[in-house]
Order: sequence, then C-alpha cells, then structure tokens
Amino acid sequence: MQERGRFEGGCAWVDGDYVALTEARIPIIDMGFLRCDATYDVVSVWNNRFFRLEDHLDRFEAGWKSLHMTPPLSRDGMKDILVECVMRTGLENAYVAMILTRGVALPGVRDPRVMENRFYAYAAPFVSIFKPEDQELGAHLVVSRETIRIPSRAVDPRVKNFHWGDMVGGLFEAYQRGGQTVVLADADGNITEGPGFNIFAYCDDVLLTPASGVLEGITRRTVLELAAELGIAVREDLFGVEVLRSAAEIFITSTAGGIMPVTTLDGRTVGRGRPGPVTSRLRRRYWEVHDEESWTTPVD
Amino acid sequence: MQERGRFEGGCAWVDGDYVALTEARIPIIDMGFLRCDATYDVVSVWNNRFFRLEDHLDRFEAGWKSLHMTPPLSRDGMKDILVECVMRTGLENAYVAMILTRGVALPGVRDPRVMENRFYAYAAPFVSIFKPEDQELGAHLVVSRETIRIPSRAVDPRVKNFHWGDMVGGLFEAYQRGGQTVVLADADGNITEGPGFNIFAYCDDVLLTPASGVLEGITRRTVLELAAELGIAVREDLFGVEVLRSAAEIFITSTAGGIMPVTTLDGRTVGRGRPGPVTSRLRRRYWEVHDEESWTTPVD
Repeated sequence: MQERGRFEGGCAWVDGDYVALTEARIPIIDMGFLRCDATYDVVSVWNNRFFRLEDHLDRFEAGWKSLHMTPPLSRDGMKDILVECVMRTGLENAYVAMILTRGVALPGVRDPRVMENRFYAYAAPFVSIFKPEDQELGAHLVVSRETIRIPSRAVDPRVKNFHWGDMVGGLFEAYQRGGQTVVLADADGNITEGPGFNIFAYCDDVLLTPASGVLEGITRRTVLELAAELGIAVREDLFGVEVLRSAAEIFITSTAGGIMPVTTLDGRTVGRGRPGPVTSRLRRRYWEVHDEESWTTPVD
Repeated sequence: MQERGRFEGGCAWVDGDYVALTEARIPIIDMGFLRCDATYDVVSVWNNRFFRLEDHLDRFEAGWKSLHMTPPLSRDGMKDILVECVMRTGLENAYVAMILTRGVALPGVRDPRVMENRFYAYAAPFVSIFKPEDQELGAHLVVSRETIRIPSRAVDPRVKNFHWGDMVGGLFEAYQRGGQTVVLADADGNITEGPGFNIFAYCDDVLLTPASGVLEGITRRTVLELAAELGIAVREDLFGVEVLRSAAEIFITSTAGGIMPVTTLDGRTVGRGRPGPVTSRLRRRYWEVHDEESWTTPVD
C-alpha cells in the first residue's frame, strides 16, 4: 500500500529505476529535449486491460526504425516495464507512455549516429482531451486561421513526435476565439489533425477522415474498423474546412479519451448541437471492445 | 580548484542549484520535453568575454513573449546565472545556453496557459559545428532533396526552438551523400538554413543570405554589419539551390563556430575549393571584434 501511495499519481521508469512520475527526471543534454529527437507512443489501460498493446508497440517500432534509432531493450523488455509501471500505480484506468530518445550528447558532439538511444516509460491516471461533461455534451473546436500543420515533408506525422509548436500556437488561437481545442489545416487548406487527436466528419451518410498528413492513430484505425463492422460507410480523403462546416456530426479520436464529440465549429453549431447518432453508436462500441479479449491484454 | 574540476565539463543551473552539466536533469513531464514547448538562446564567451550578450537576451525575450511565456526570474537574474555558470566552469571560451520551457504539466492538465514556465541555463566548453581542420579547409555541405524546412506558418523559426526533426532527417541524408552537414530548402525551393546555422553565398560580388524563413541569427547579423563596415555589398533575398551552385564562396554562420567556410556543395567544388577571400576577411574581423569592448561584456 505504501508503494501504491507513492505511485498513485503515476510511476515512471528512468535509468533502470521505478520512480514517482513527478520525481522522474531526464538529462538536460538528452537530444530528446534539446533537439526534439525522439519518438513515443501512448497506450491506454481500461479496466485493468491494455487496449491494442501490440498495435501500439508495432507503431512505436516503425517510428524508431524510421528515425534510425535502436532501443536499449527488447520489445518484451519494454513491455515488461510498461506492465510494471501500471502495476505499481495500482490504477485500473491508465495512460501509459513509452518514449525513445536519441540520447545524451556530450558537449561538442553533434552526430546523432553515435548517441546511445534512451528508453523512458511511465503510467499515469487515464486522461481525456475533453472533460467528462464535454464528452457528453460535445466540445468547441476551432480551425486555425493563423497556423498550419508542420508538413509531412518536414517532419513525418506518422512517426509520433513531440513537435507540437504548431499545435500549441493553434491552441492559443483557439482559446482566444472561444474554442476548447484546435484543428490545423495544411498549406493547401486540407484539414489534418489537432493536438493529440485525429478528426472525423460525418457528411452525406459517409464518415470522412483525412487520408494523409496525419498520425495514423490507433483510435482512428479502431473507428475505421468499428464503422465497417457497424455498416457505416467510411472514406479516407483530403478535404477542407467547408466539408467540416457541412458535417452533420464531427468527432475527434485519441487514446486520451477515445471518441469525443464536437458540437461547435468556429462558434457555429454542428448538426443539431449535440452528439449525433453515428458518434454515439461508435463511442458505445469503442468502450465495449475495451472488455473484449481479442482487442486487449490483461495487465497482470 | 575542486569546483573547477567538478564543473570543467560544464555547469548547469536547474531548480536553484548549480550542478555538473552531465548530472543536470529536468522533469520528464516538463512540456519543454513532452511538447517541445520551449525557446532558447545560446551566447558565446570568448577570452572571458560574452559576445553580444544583450542582443542574445533581447532575442530570447522576444521569443518567450511570442510564446506567451514569462520567466520566473528578471533579466538581470537570468544574466547573473549565466555569468555564474561560466565562472564555475573556469572556461575562457564557452557555449552558454539559456532555456525557457512551458513547465511541468500534472497528469490530465493540457492547458499551456496555467503552467509555470521554467528557466534552465548551462555553460559548456565552446563548441563549433565544424571541426578545427574543416574551419581551415572548408566543409562539405549537402542540400537536402528529401526534407524541407518546417515552414514559418507552422513554427516561427525566428523564435529559436528545438523543433529539429527536419534538421536531423536532413543530417542523415547528408551523411549518406558524403556531406558533413545539410541545408534545407522550403516547399518553394528557397534555401533556408541548416542545423544551428544560417548560410551566405557570395555571387557576382554580392553577399547573399536568405531574407526570411530562418532564424535571425546574431552571427548572421554580425556578418551583415561587418560586411557593411568592410565595404562588401550584401543582399537579403530569396534564392534557390542554383544560386548556391553559382557561388564563388559559401559560408555558414553560428554562435557555435562563428563564420565557417563551405568548400563542396552536393559533392561539387565551390569556387576554387578553398575558403575564399571574402569569407576570410569577414572571419578575421569577426574574431577581432570578440576582443572589442563595444561588442562584448566581461564575464567577471
């Protein structure tokens, strides 16, 4: 119980030790900090079960391979650490992060090829992008007019990364315009994604989501699969803000909160101004599958 | 002397303590790390004198204001810490970094407006992007074909930041193509900057440097001012790789190394294949002014 008390706010693994998340520290000269040279992934635990853990580990692996990195531990070794982090918190529902950084550069060393990549992990209480009340009523979304998404040709959004300057800039604009979060378009006006989430629009009986220029979210993939199961037509495409404006329903997806309805866009009501039937059906099914064995892995 | 031994590899200021740079650690949940939500600046010390310290502090201040941040210390307070970091290392020549991050986010908190911004600083032995031998002979530069610079509309390059994913991607390409470093173009093919440096090309008796889409480097500004003093025509402009290819001389500029000649571009010889006369004149004058009172501030 003492352990649980110590770790109930979160447990991190750093340099071979399990420490309270708020005490966990990384070297200031880790290039993960000084060059944003890192990839990460976040998997959820719901009712003591990891959701799609292997899919998250697969994406994490594709990410570090793309960055020419190699973890200091095997996949099983990393998985054991994620499990142990969750166990120590005693949390039934958790947000579980794995991070691989380029590693420490001694002064004067700038060649990323010679650095020893570093693995960090932590489990924290489950978090949601929208507060519970906004999950029920729907949230206010703003499409940024000032900031565009970092393009894929500069930083590949499919390699989950901490390059959030565009997102943070967009958030400040959204707050100023009465929004709770923001979605960014690319230089051509195509809608991409927001801070930590993908976006879906239900228009003319088809569920649309951006085809490229975005993280291939595991929650996004889950929605595409569940929509097929439920007989909802889906299309991955490129589209602009006018398509969002015409949508009967809009929702965002993230491991941090699942499927979350949006009920105003740039201050205008979306559809009937409350979470729509397609959103609600998908959302119900999304949480159902969190208890199903084929989608999940027990923590212990 | 014991202090000097402890700090000769570098001295950092973190949470009110001076610690050896390799021991300095930041919270893993600092959004400076998890969201790359930070700005920084680097000033050099040469022969026990800071070079253009007030200009670096001015740029740092413009950066954190642009990000809606407020340091926990006054400008003089931060300056005192920079001085103390250098003093403790005992270094005559140093690389001195100041960093302001968004700060720590407790689990579930995503609003950057409520976070307490954190100041970090460190002094380390002076570093140069090119090794001493390459400073004399000139280095091999590659223009990336695969990666473009993060555009200003996504992340403002004038606010010095750690979003280096494009740069690191470009570096791996450069190494593969026999280069020592890389310069990136924007989506329209205009040359921008490289990892930690601005670029200059001397073409048809005019010294050119990209007019926008780049950090307004203090070394870049120093070159523009010294060129005026020396009667060298300068122009800030937009130009593509073909202009670089036609250049009689190319050099890069950075606090980390000053003015550094480039003698091959994409494997082809630049000019006569050795540092040119304009580069050499500017370089000589650049190091001369490091001893002049009007450009410098003594460390003690």
